[in-house]
Amino acid sequence: MERRSFVQGAGLAGVLAAGVAPAVVHAQANLRWRLTSAFPKSLDTIYGAAETFAAKVRAMSGGKFEISVHPGGELVPMPGLVDAVQNGTVEMGHTAPYYYFGKNDCFALGCAIPFGLNSRQMTAWQYDGNGLKLMREFYSNYGFTSFPMGNTGAQMGGWFRKEIKTVADMNGLKFRVGGFAGRVTGRLGTVSQNIAGGEIYQALEKGTIDAAEWVGPYDDQKLGFNKVAPFYHYPGWWEGGPQLDLYVNQKAFDGLSAEYKAIIESAAAYAHTEMQAKYDVRNPAALKQLVAGGTKLVAFPKPVLDASFKAAMDLYSEISASNPAWKKIYDDYSAFRREANLWFRFTEARFDSYMQTARL
Amino acid sequence: MERRSFVQGAGLAGVLAAGVAPAVVHAQANLRWRLTSAFPKSLDTIYGAAETFAAKVRAMSGGKFEISVHPGGELVPMPGLVDAVQNGTVEMGHTAPYYYFGKNDCFALGCAIPFGLNSRQMTAWQYDGNGLKLMREFYSNYGFTSFPMGNTGAQMGGWFRKEIKTVADMNGLKFRVGGFAGRVTGRLGTVSQNIAGGEIYQALEKGTIDAAEWVGPYDDQKLGFNKVAPFYHYPGWWEGGPQLDLYVNQKAFDGLSAEYKAIIESAAAYAHTEMQAKYDVRNPAALKQLVAGGTKLVAFPKPVLDASFKAAMDLYSEISASNPAWKKIYDDYSAFRREANLWFRFTEARFDSYMQTARL
Repeated sequence: MERRSFVQGAGLAGVLAAGVAPAVVHAQANLRWRLTSAFPKSLDTIYGAAETFAAKVRAMSGGKFEISVHPGGELVPMPGLVDAVQNGTVEMGHTAPYYYFGKNDCFALGCAIPFGLNSRQMTAWQYDGNGLKLMREFYSNYGFTSFPMGNTGAQMGGWFRKEIKTVADMNGLKFRVGGFAGRVTGRLGTVSQNIAGGEIYQALEKGTIDAAEWVGPYDDQKLGFNKVAPFYHYPGWWEGGPQLDLYVNQKAFDGLSAEYKAIIESAAAYAHTEMQAKYDVRNPAALKQLVAGGTKLVAFPKPVLDASFKAAMDLYSEISASNPAWKKIYDDYSAFRREANLWFRFTEARFDSYMQTARL
Repeated sequence: MERRSFVQGAGLAGVLAAGVAPAVVHAQANLRWRLTSAFPKSLDTIYGAAETFAAKVRAMSGGKFEISVHPGGELVPMPGLVDAVQNGTVEMGHTAPYYYFGKNDCFALGCAIPFGLNSRQMTAWQYDGNGLKLMREFYSNYGFTSFPMGNTGAQMGGWFRKEIKTVADMNGLKFRVGGFAGRVTGRLGTVSQNIAGGEIYQALEKGTIDAAEWVGPYDDQKLGFNKVAPFYHYPGWWEGGPQLDLYVNQKAFDGLSAEYKAIIESAAAYAHTEMQAKYDVRNPAALKQLVAGGTKLVAFPKPVLDASFKAAMDLYSEISASNPAWKKIYDDYSAFRREANLWFRFTEARFDSYMQTARL
């Protein structure tokens, strides 16, 4: 396959050159691939991860492997991304896997589930635990492979017109919340609303919805939710560390040279790390500005977290009973989650809590 | 320079091939470089990061760019690593920058200082804050450039023959602790002991020293410290997120093709992320085994942390007054630390603390 890619890319002169000095000529064809993002350009940290990735691939290949990055909707609408990568309409997609839980709940495990792993734990499970291996095994049913490519860190719980003080306050709440998380909040009585990012502000202003979650301070501030809903609850317990994935059509990937395969892996690793860094650099200033502007930062009451936690664990038991693929991945995920939190509660948590209250 | 590297690497046949089809032939010479690690192979997670890096460079270059990795002492002893990279004795070194604070305290800022950044914050400061830019500017005085390549996460406070209950218990304590941290603990009266890893066990057993810090459960367990000192204190407030760096001789780096430069950057990013993942996967099981074996896990009392924090901040003020290079970097570092902790205390900390006490 390497030979074939080379011949395709190099043309006659290349073949001649290879005949003269095969040791010198790389199995690196000129390639042009397309990557569809699930996101608009306005989410510059998330969308930007795909651009960073493409830039690194371009640089490492000396401009021979060119990947054009397209915002959601330009080539493929976000809901069609999995099908498009599966069918080879595009070679690559960059997305939040949980969007596709309607196909199979396992997609959520590759991104975020309520009361799941935090950002660093998710990366550990993927890079050195069984996470990436198990998710790739699952994704093989859809004809693509995956690479971790970004994380937002723990998101905020979102914007509420009225403060949530009791579990009963969740009952009947018209809440714009992601689909998989909505299956948990729904058990507390919320009515999930599926509203595109650009329409949330108006819905919140008019009172068509009572609350909406988006990402965190940096992204939320740009959409101005603070002007129409005063209470900013935390934590976003349904997204403690959502991972973005790069999906690559398996046949296209298999046709690459070993060099290009390795280049994709490390370029994705760079973009993975940089995206979390960007959020960690940008969120603090945005939060300060929001609070200075009157936003009320309020923790969800513990009884709300407890009721939500129970609802989440009940849901996972039910899915495990009916979906063997979920059970296989979730058993590993939940064992890792238990061990990781046992360790993190000591030196990491104590160091962090001391620093967070120190006079810096 | 690319042309020259190409000719050097490819030989006559390569030159001929380039003449026939220059567009096909990459500016990728056959290169063999040497990387000295500061660490022994027994520290498999840290030493392993350099091996991961070399493997990724090899794969991305189709085997043309070969980097041999050598444990500390094989080519260059750890204390001579900076000089060796500066002089070009080796092209690359992988180390914990704070080892070289004797040359200039600024080295510590590229790794860890007491009450500094945690792992994720350090990566954010380096990747998207001013950290990498500022540290490279400083490293240019030594003729090399740098890439973040690994982090251990928050380390443990180490092994103590007697429990530390008060600030007074630190006074006179013979403590095996890293050099820069020892300047802070010394202000509480500890007598720093510089003992190589392989000799700590015996010193602790004989009572030649009262306490020793090493890394964390995974590495500490291998050296058996639990058998000779029952109290395992946390947090290791002098190493909340120590970063390892890849140092590359600047002239050697400048002589590389743009492709190879980019390959080094992304290979280091992969190794950076994987090393933290390895610790996060391995530490939990080791901690459980240590505790099951009788180790007493004890938090440092808050007065000890408070006294240490004050000693650290005093030291940083003193260095700032006498070392302009430190002041320039530390001013940026400390501002970032303040903002980052302000943000992390809300949704990240609340999510983590809930998960750490949940019945998982």
